[in-house]
Formats: sequence, structure tokens, C-alpha cells
Amino acid sequence: MGGRVATRPYGLLTIDWLCRIIVAMIVEMQKGTTTNEVDAVVQRAKSLGFSVQLNLGTEKVVIAILGSNTGQVPSDTFAVLPGVEHVTRIMKPYKLASREFKSENTVVSAGGVEIGGNRFVVMAGPCAVESEEQLMEAVEVVKGAGAVILRGGAFKPRTSPFTFQGLGKEGLEMLAKARKHSGLPIVTEVVDTHEVELVAEYADIIQVGARNMQNFALLKSVGKTSKPVLLKRGFSCTVTEWLTAADYVLADGKAQVILGERGIRTFEDSTRFSLDISSIPVVKRFSHLPVIVDPSHAAGHFSLVPAIARAALAAGADGLLIEVHPNPKEALVDGLQSLTPSDFTRLMKDLRAIAKAVGRTL
Amino acid sequence: MGGRVATRPYGLLTIDWLCRIIVAMIVEMQKGTTTNEVDAVVQRAKSLGFSVQLNLGTEKVVIAILGSNTGQVPSDTFAVLPGVEHVTRIMKPYKLASREFKSENTVVSAGGVEIGGNRFVVMAGPCAVESEEQLMEAVEVVKGAGAVILRGGAFKPRTSPFTFQGLGKEGLEMLAKARKHSGLPIVTEVVDTHEVELVAEYADIIQVGARNMQNFALLKSVGKTSKPVLLKRGFSCTVTEWLTAADYVLADGKAQVILGERGIRTFEDSTRFSLDISSIPVVKRFSHLPVIVDPSHAAGHFSLVPAIARAALAAGADGLLIEVHPNPKEALVDGLQSLTPSDFTRLMKDLRAIAKAVGRTL
Amino acid sequence: MGGRVATRPYGLLTIDWLCRIIVAMIVEMQKGTTTNEVDAVVQRAKSLGFSVQLNLGTEKVVIAILGSNTGQVPSDTFAVLPGVEHVTRIMKPYKLASREFKSENTVVSAGGVEIGGNRFVVMAGPCAVESEEQLMEAVEVVKGAGAVILRGGAFKPRTSPFTFQGLGKEGLEMLAKARKHSGLPIVTEVVDTHEVELVAEYADIIQVGARNMQNFALLKSVGKTSKPVLLKRGFSCTVTEWLTAADYVLADGKAQVILGERGIRTFEDSTRFSLDISSIPVVKRFSHLPVIVDPSHAAGHFSLVPAIARAALAAGADGLLIEVHPNPKEALVDGLQSLTPSDFTRLMKDLRAIAKAVGRTL
Amino acid sequence: MGGRVATRPYGLLTIDWLCRIIVAMIVEMQKGTTTNEVDAVVQRAKSLGFSVQLNLGTEKVVIAILGSNTGQVPSDTFAVLPGVEHVTRIMKPYKLASREFKSENTVVSAGGVEIGGNRFVVMAGPCAVESEEQLMEAVEVVKGAGAVILRGGAFKPRTSPFTFQGLGKEGLEMLAKARKHSGLPIVTEVVDTHEVELVAEYADIIQVGARNMQNFALLKSVGKTSKPVLLKRGFSCTVTEWLTAADYVLADGKAQVILGERGIRTFEDSTRFSLDISSIPVVKRFSHLPVIVDPSHAAGHFSLVPAIARAALAAGADGLLIEVHPNPKEALVDGLQSLTPSDFTRLMKDLRAIAKAVGRTL
Repeated sequence: MGGRVATRPYGLLTIDWLCRIIVAMIVEMQKGTTTNEVDAVVQRAKSLGFSVQLNLGTEKVVIAILGSNTGQVPSDTFAVLPGVEHVTRIMKPYKLASREFKSENTVVSAGGVEIGGNRFVVMAGPCAVESEEQLMEAVEVVKGAGAVILRGGAFKPRTSPFTFQGLGKEGLEMLAKARKHSGLPIVTEVVDTHEVELVAEYADIIQVGARNMQNFALLKSVGKTSKPVLLKRGFSCTVTEWLTAADYVLADGKAQVILGERGIRTFEDSTRFSLDISSIPVVKRFSHLPVIVDPSHAAGHFSLVPAIARAALAAGADGLLIEVHPNPKEALVDGLQSLTPSDFTRLMKDLRAIAKAVGRTL
Repeated sequence: MGGRVATRPYGLLTIDWLCRIIVAMIVEMQKGTTTNEVDAVVQRAKSLGFSVQLNLGTEKVVIAILGSNTGQVPSDTFAVLPGVEHVTRIMKPYKLASREFKSENTVVSAGGVEIGGNRFVVMAGPCAVESEEQLMEAVEVVKGAGAVILRGGAFKPRTSPFTFQGLGKEGLEMLAKARKHSGLPIVTEVVDTHEVELVAEYADIIQVGARNMQNFALLKSVGKTSKPVLLKRGFSCTVTEWLTAADYVLADGKAQVILGERGIRTFEDSTRFSLDISSIPVVKRFSHLPVIVDPSHAAGHFSLVPAIARAALAAGADGLLIEVHPNPKEALVDGLQSLTPSDFTRLMKDLRAIAKAVGRTL
Repeated sequence: MGGRVATRPYGLLTIDWLCRIIVAMIVEMQKGTTTNEVDAVVQRAKSLGFSVQLNLGTEKVVIAILGSNTGQVPSDTFAVLPGVEHVTRIMKPYKLASREFKSENTVVSAGGVEIGGNRFVVMAGPCAVESEEQLMEAVEVVKGAGAVILRGGAFKPRTSPFTFQGLGKEGLEMLAKARKHSGLPIVTEVVDTHEVELVAEYADIIQVGARNMQNFALLKSVGKTSKPVLLKRGFSCTVTEWLTAADYVLADGKAQVILGERGIRTFEDSTRFSLDISSIPVVKRFSHLPVIVDPSHAAGHFSLVPAIARAALAAGADGLLIEVHPNPKEALVDGLQSLTPSDFTRLMKDLRAIAKAVGRTL
Repeated sequence: MGGRVATRPYGLLTIDWLCRIIVAMIVEMQKGTTTNEVDAVVQRAKSLGFSVQLNLGTEKVVIAILGSNTGQVPSDTFAVLPGVEHVTRIMKPYKLASREFKSENTVVSAGGVEIGGNRFVVMAGPCAVESEEQLMEAVEVVKGAGAVILRGGAFKPRTSPFTFQGLGKEGLEMLAKARKHSGLPIVTEVVDTHEVELVAEYADIIQVGARNMQNFALLKSVGKTSKPVLLKRGFSCTVTEWLTAADYVLADGKAQVILGERGIRTFEDSTRFSLDISSIPVVKRFSHLPVIVDPSHAAGHFSLVPAIARAALAAGADGLLIEVHPNPKEALVDGLQSLTPSDFTRLMKDLRAIAKAVGRTL
């Protein structure tokens, strides 16, 4: 579909163009449906600008809705009509994030680092910015071991209101200092639409956390900045919903999106979340966006992080977001899932060997 | 927390009082742990104000952390220490929502209607406010059939950016008109911290939707209004996380909370979500807060709504939040899960019979 | 569809008849598919006896497969062909359990008790048969309170090999004695194809447990007896898979099936399993088979059992399978989820009131 | 703990030995519990042979149960007693499969091939044995590309009774012929206790499928043969339940166990199952048993198989069970997830490079 996509990131997109994306729903009628009921479905489809193809079986009538933009038309539109038994949506609800929309891989550039190209990008640092000392020590460690982007949270979404909530603006300033000192671009999270502008001022990549993946107000807001957005997958959201959430960020044509797999919630209780390793090839198949993996939040325990990190690289991810703390025993947040400097250095060595085996640089 | 907790709805709360809530973590040491490692755990516990009890088994050392407020202390605090094998949190992470905190049922008053008392409260109306005509027709229908609160969305969190997003402020004004006309208080959703004040001005109950249950910025913001908050359960959040989210709203001591069960995400695909009927008795056991059920979003199909609604009443819920549309066939949002006026009237009749059987009014 | 179904339970079923059930798959071709590829799909469909309807869209070709018995044809049959992008199965994979197959509700008769009729049938007793004294005491209690079928396990499927595995044949004999003494028919589980004949000799209803719902060898084996089968839902099986498993039991035309909902596995950890209350109306819509609910195994805690039991009745279930133990404190298996005699008596009183409210007898 | 384990596989195990494994439960009493209630817990613990340690807090009494074999004692044993609020099981319910039981990795030998050693073992072949031609062609292909064990199903557990169920004994004979011809040992599934002896006669490794992971009768039965057992993980079973099921097979001291991760059921619908990549390091941490990965059943689509296979190797798995079909387009079962010979050859080349990078042979 390549030639059809205009400038990156979708600047010249027109409604006309979107309409050329083919879509379909399948409407099955109940047995014994009447001609009037079938007509009502056909009329509604036509009134919405769709073409229709009828399969008048001897026992069952099946109506194929052909056209475009059914992403805007909930399947309920047809399902509520009398005589309709079932509606199957064939088209995916997302557009801008889809590989049909843009066939070549998107490479996102952030502070001079490219994400989605041949280089496997490691973003590392502490879960939360706690102090200047901690952060400076962390950036030394992660840069020394080969990380190319610094992560660190200034605004923390915590499940309990009685726990440490982050240093806020002060934390952002420490991150900026660490960037100046190290040359590493920074990725940091935003949790409130009120703070999007502030965070965008400091961050090279704005992170939207898993719990906010369907906070549509926040998605729209970060989409209005010109900074790349790292969109973490909601821990109970499907890949389809994740890509549809990316559409929210992409809709204004300003922001770029990096997807972040960080595990989904399942019944398994030996890890905090179950990292969905299959989502890597699935995303690569259906979307043009780069995807990185956060093994730390998925595992919840440092001892499991290296295995998951190696697997992510082997499965085709474009990078990692990984927690490293100079002294996990003293971490205010998520110490148990943070790697020590020496663990991280060892992991980077392992990753280098695998990267070479799969034809990537690190 | 002491000084931070003010008056209503837990007027006399003091730090002292909170400290009397018993809490505990169990720290298991690895086999062959050293005295120094055990000491380090004990010292950390004491430095945080906890008491400690040691079980020096012949093969394993187990340390019980006794005290209070461990909700503020992540289990990682101990798990990261050398020689620690596993930490089990015994205490629940929520406080203000817990029945230990307040043993009598909370009854929330909204626009003159009590939720959580003997009366089973039915909140009904369209998913989205679409027009004044639609809303006025809807309020007539639901009031006529016995609903006592009007629901209707002005700000809609939609999974796709290309679908109808609600009428916004105009919708709020229509709701106010419908309230004036009918006398029914209104419940409506807020999706952005920027709009909390606006929504609070109009609504009798502010709804926080499932996708925002862990949007902590929004929770804090609605907790600063004096309006009761209907907190829908995140579709992949545990009851424990739900009650912990309620703590966010309750933390400022201004707002009251009504819990709203609306189904959780499971592998089952014959319904949109799986209504967790067991959460009703679980919430009643562990919390003092009222809980209502939304059968419409759980089921995703009108034909399943009455069965779930009846079950909710029989299981002990305090009310329903239910979608009724004068003409579901023309609904802009979620028509397939909306009851018609006649279906709703029939359901209310069934509910009246069951309410009587379980000793409640309707 | 009524008249089309022959004798109970499906004795005269012929292949011809099955072929008249309408079915469909939707095969979407990739963009730019060739005529040869489309032809290959059409030829394969025809070679399998299907009709085909082509939608030759300007951008996409969609092929509807019309005919019958696609339950026997995996969607892979078409999905593997070159040029095929996606196959959507419209038809459900089960037949004999479907309401299309038999439109009236099936009423199963077991030892003189009808399941699936107007009477709400309560099956109660201990989880495991432990001794004659225990069983006799239990049957007195449950009969006295209004149960009409006695439950009790002689062969127990336990997750650990080091726990009590049931009394085996001796337990069956105790059940037979209890039946003789009380007049109540008995339901008991079989766990091994080697013991199907033995259990069938004693039981009025043979139970297949949740963990064996997809033990197809066992399903076929119990389907060859003439005893009704209580088929518990696998805790991670969809309603569709459950009804398909019922087809295994029904395939030989000898056995009848009672479905047993007992909760599904989800991320929620406050209950042992999450009772899927919505499966009751779903099963009633798509199947003619009776369905009962086991609140004890779902809840895992006696205090939650009454609420779930009441909800099951209100939602339209045909009965309950409930654990009652004369002395739960001494139970060898699952004591925590067993009701005491007095709790059970109180529950039966509550159920009687609700049964009346929903127009059923108890 | 190494030296304490006797001969392979646990031949000299005595009850005495098992008793030396340390275990614990934590029993929390309700506030205001009486001395009599505490005594009752202590007495029950002692009567079962446990030691007890009391934490007599000022507000809460916590009792630690110390001893062994609590795997045989359900937590209900204490939970049902008056005054008990909650029981937390600290000990894992499995023993024989645990790394505490045996600290060195188990290496299983099957037909001359070692599983669990340094070599990464690829088992490949068609899902179902369809004909001698198909099987001979398949074994040529997979051997040529480097597989060292041939897989193929003679007894197929199919979700619908109307689909192909496998060739049975005839299929086993074809497998034996293929083994003779190629020299590759064979792994094949058993689905019924009646056929365990038959399958054991032919197979080098007996496979127990995911749907039978908690078919305890089958587990016991295969544990009585002397053939290694490939125990697939039930798609909704936790790692803990999986290892406990392994205990069933290991209990008789005859069989060895290879674990097989094949994906768990989650809400995600872009793959058939979600491969739980984290289970690899988790199993390696808690168990001494080898673990292999089946990427084919997890993915459900051939295009996703290579990425998952590479990830499995990088994460530390000991091998793969992978579906390869000479002509997937004609496969009777699961063609869509089968690799073609050329895809498989390419994958093996990729795996060789990664194996080298992680220090293993292939």
C-alpha cells in the first residue's frame, strides 16, 4: 500500500483517502426473516454510504456490508434491527496504526536515537526518580553498560494513595540534568492532562502508562504535542485495542507512537503479569509501529527479567524498557523488579550476542 | 494519615485510630540464612515502626511483621533484602473502604435518594445523551417504570477516536433540564480532570468509568468535589484494587463512594464482559460501601440484561445502573445492550417481586 | 425447529438431517489475490459439498461458504490456501446441544426427579463420601430441608496425589444405601473410563467434573451408558466449548445431558473461581439443555454460597448442586465451602421465596 | 539439598524423607478470638503432627504451622475452625517436581536422546499421523533439517466429536516404521487409560495433552509405565498446578517427566493461546525438570511460530515441540499452524545461530 501513504507522520491525510480503505461487516439474518427486514438492513447500510451484497441462501440470508470507515459504525447499528441474528465485524477498528495504512516500518526518532530501525534500543534507569544522586549514579551505570535512553518516573501512578507518588516537576528537572550530563535522551511518564505540556517540555519521549491506555482524554492530549509517545499496553487490553488507542494519539498527525508491551493480566500468579511474547510478531504483522518490551513490570521479580529480555530480542522486538537501580535494596518503588548494575551489565553482554545472531546491532 | 483525614464521612478519625488497625507481612527467609540477614530484616521493620516476631524454625526462619499502615509499605521493601525468599502480605492494601475501618453500611445520599439502604435503587436512562427529545422521552419512560435516578452520558470514553464522543457541556445542560422536569437526580460520567468541576456542577452523582478506575489523577480530582462518586470497577481489576481505588476518592474526606460492578474481562466470548456476581457478597463482606450492578455493559446484549439484573438483586446488590433507550434501533451508542421501554417495564415488575422475596423495597 | 427432531434423545438422527442445518464460513482473500487463488478456494469448498457465493469487491474478494456440517470442517481447511487472508466461522461448532437442533427445553428425568421443568431442583450433600454415618446424617439433613437429589463423591479428582482420593466402590455402596434409605436419587462423579460401567450401575446421574470436560475419551464412554450425565463446565472453557463437549456425550443417542456451571478461572482472587452468571441466559438462548449451578466450588467459601445460589435461581437456572456437610469442621475435602445444616435450611427458605417470585416451584 | 535425593527417579524415596521437607501455613485469628478457639487450632495442628508457633499480638493472634507434608493437608482443615479469619499456605503443594527436592537439573533420556542437557532438542513432525506416505515424507524433512525426535499423533483429542479422531493403533505402527527408517525416537499422545499400555509399547516419550493435565486417572496410569512422559501444561492451569500434576506422574517412582509449555488461555484473541514465556524461567527456578515449548499450538498460525520458537530458546527452554507438515494445505488437522519444510529449515538455521549465542548446541 506504500505509495498511497503521504508524509510521515500522516500530515497530508485526507478523509477521502481514509474512505478508500476497504471494510466489511457480515450481517446474518434469522431463519424466516422477512423481505422487509432484509430491506431495512440494506437501507440502513446504504444510508451510511455502504455497498451491500446479498447472499439469499435457501435457509438463511447473509448480507455483506462493503465500503469504508465502518470503524466509525458500531456493529450495533445493524445488530439492533429486527430479524438480525448476528453481526460479524471483519474490518479492524484501527486505521492509522495499521500496516494496511502504511506498509513500511515506522522509525521514530527521539533525541537523536532511532527506535524501530536495525539497532535494538535499550532504555534503562530507575522506576522512579528519587534524588539527584540516585539518578546520576543510575545514568552512569546504564550508559556505561550500553543503554541509549534514560528512563525514570517523575509522576508515578500508584495503586494506593498512601504510597510515594513521585517528585513531580523537581524530578523532571533532575532528568534534564541527567540528560545534559550523559547525553542520553529521556523517557518519562505523564498521568494527568494538566501536566502534558509540562512533561512535553522536558521529555524526549512521553510515556503513557498501562493503566492510562484507555484514558482517551490523555491520549488526545499527548497527541497534540510533537513529542514521540511510548504507549504501554493496558494489562487487560487486546492488541487490537492497543492499536486503536494508538490511533487516538496519531489522529492529530503530530505525534509518533512507540508501542510498549509490558504483560497482560492472566490467572497465572507466579509472575506479576504474563508477558505476551506473541504480541511482538502480531504487532509486526498488523502494524507499522515500533514495539519495545518492558520485562521488569511483567515479571515483577529481577530474577526473571534477563530471560524475558533475551526472549523479547529473539522474538523481534525493537528494544527494551528496563529497570535498573544503583541499589535496589533501597529503592522507594519496585525494587524487587530492578536489576543491579552488575546484573544489567551481564544482561547487556548476553543481548549483544543474541543481537548479532539475529542480525541486529545493539 | 492522621491530620490529613478530615470530617465526613469518618469524622473522628485520627492517626491513633488508624494505627490500631492490625496489619502483618510474613517474611520467609531462605534456608541457611545468616543471623546478619535476619537482623537486617528486623532492623528495617523496626525503622519503619513495626513490631516483629521471629519463628526460628530448625530449617527455616519466618519473620512476622506486626504493626500498622503496611499499606504504605510495599512488600518489596523486605523482598529485596539478602536472604529473603518470599514475602506474603496479609494485610489488605486499602483502609478507608474497608469494613474494619467502618463496620456499619454506608448509605450515600444523592439528590434526595439514598443508595445503600433498604430500597433497591434503579438508575436508568440512555447510554449517551443524544438530543433533548431523546432524553426527555427516556426520562418519562424510566420514571414511569419506577427508576429513581436518571443516567446519561455527556462525555463518552470511546475505544475508537472516529466514533461519537458525546455532546459535552450541552449534554450536561439537557440532563439538568431533564432533572428539573422529572425530579430525578442525575448520574453522569467525567473523563478528564479538566472537566471535573464542570461535571460536578451539574451531576448529583459523578461517575468514573471502568477504563479510568486506575486513572489516579482523576480519582484524586473527583475526591475533591463534594459530590458522591460512582466508581465503576475496572474490567481487569480485582475487588482489592477496586477498593484501593475507592481509597483514592475517599482520601480527602469529602466525597462518598458508590461501587459499580460492570463485569470483568475473561476468556468467555458469548458476552461482552463476565459479570462477577460473586463480587457482590465479597464487597459486602470486606467493605462498608454500597454496590450497584450495571448489567447492560457486562452483557452487551439486551436479551441477557434481565437475567443478570434479577441475579444482582437476589445476590444482595443495592441497585442497578441500566441502559434504557426510547428507540434502541436508533441509538448512537450501545443500542444493542439497551432495553426498550416495554422490556424495562417488564423487568421492573419482575424486580419488584424478587425485592419483596428478599425483604427489600424498590 | 421442533417437529424435525425425532425421538428422545435423538435416536433417529440421520446424516441427512444434520445436513439441513445451515452453516457458513466467510473467507476473505488478500488484496491483489489472483483468479487462480479464488478458484482454489471455490474448488475446495465444492469438493467438500458446500455452495459458494462470491463478493468480488473492487478492492477485496470475500467468499461466503454456504452449506452444512462445517462443524466437521476446520476453518484451517481454507485458511491454509494461498491468497487467503482470514477465515471467519459463522456457524457454531456444536449441533446436538443447540436450540436450532431442538427448540423445546429438554427435561431430563433421573430416578423420578425431573430436571429442566418448572421445579427448581436442589441437589445437595457432602463433597466426598467419608463414612456411612456421615452420609446418612447428610442425607437426613438435606432431605429434611428440601433437597430432592443426593450428591456425594466416591471417586475424587484431587489436584495433589498426596490427598484423600475417595472411597471408590465402597463409597458407591454407601450412596446406594443412602438412596434406599431416603428415596433420593444420587449423583456421583466418574473420573476414569475404566470405572464408567461401575459408576453407571450405582448412579442416577453420572457427573463428569470440570477438569474432565475435555477428556473426550470419558465423554464418549459415559455417552454409551443410558444414564443422564451432569456435565460440569471446564473452568477455562467457553460456553461454546461446553456445548460442543455435550455433543460428545449426546452423539451416541443414548445419554441425556444436564449442564453444570461452576465458575470460570479469571484474575479475580477473592473467590476460588468466578461464577459466570451470564452463562445461564446464554445457555438458555443457544441450547435446549437444562443447566444447574454449583455455587460451592465457585465460591470456595461458605459465606458466599447463599448469595450465589439465590442469584442462580433468579437468573433462570434449573437447579443447584450444593455442598452440605453435617460437620464442615471435620470434612476431609472442601470443608470451607460446605454449608452447615442450619445454613442450608435457611438458604432453602430464602430460595422458596424467590422461586415463588419468579414463578417456579422448589 | 542435593545429596539427600537418592537414585533416579526417586526410587528410594521414603515417607520419612518427605517429612523432612519444611512447610508452613499461617493461620490468622479474628479479632477478639477466645483462648479456646486458639487452642482448637493448636490441637488440630498437633494432632496432624505439626509444630506450632504462636504470635499473640495485642490485637490479633497469628499462628504459624511448622512441619512437613502440609501438601497433604488442605488449608480448609484450619480455615473451618471457629475464630479463624484466614489461612495462608506458604508451602507449595508439590514436592517431587520441586527444586528443593532435587537441586540438580534432571536430564531425561528417551531413545538415546537427552532432554534437559546442553543440547536444545527439537521435536518435530505432523500434528496427526495421516498416512504412511505423509509420515515418511515428514520424517525425512524434519530429520534433514536437524530435528532429533519425531512427533505425530495417533490418538487425537478433538473438541468436536464430528472431526477426525486419529488413526489409533495403525498410526502407532506407522510411527514405529518411521522410527526404524529414520532412527528418530518418537513422541505421541495418549488420551485414555485403556490405551496407556498400547501407547507405551510404541512410544519413546508418552505425551499427556493440555486438556488432560488434570485427568488424574491418566496421570497415575502413565506414571506406572517406565517411559518418559511429556506433560503439556493445561491451558488454564498455573505453573504450581502443572508441577503438582507432575507429582502425580512421579509418585510411583518409575516415570520421568518433561514439561511442555504450550500457551495459556487469556482474553487476547489474536493468537489461539498466549504463550507464557515467563513460565520458562519460573519453572527453571522452582523445578529440576526439563521444559520444552510448543509454539505451534500457542500461536495457531504458522507466521507467528518462528518468533515464538526463537524466544523460547533465548528464554532458556530445553527444546521445542513443533508442527511441520510436508504439505500444510492438505493437513487433516491444524494445517494453519504447521510449518512447511522450507519454513522449518529456515527456522532451524536461525535457532542454530541463537543457540550458539546462548551457549547451547542444537
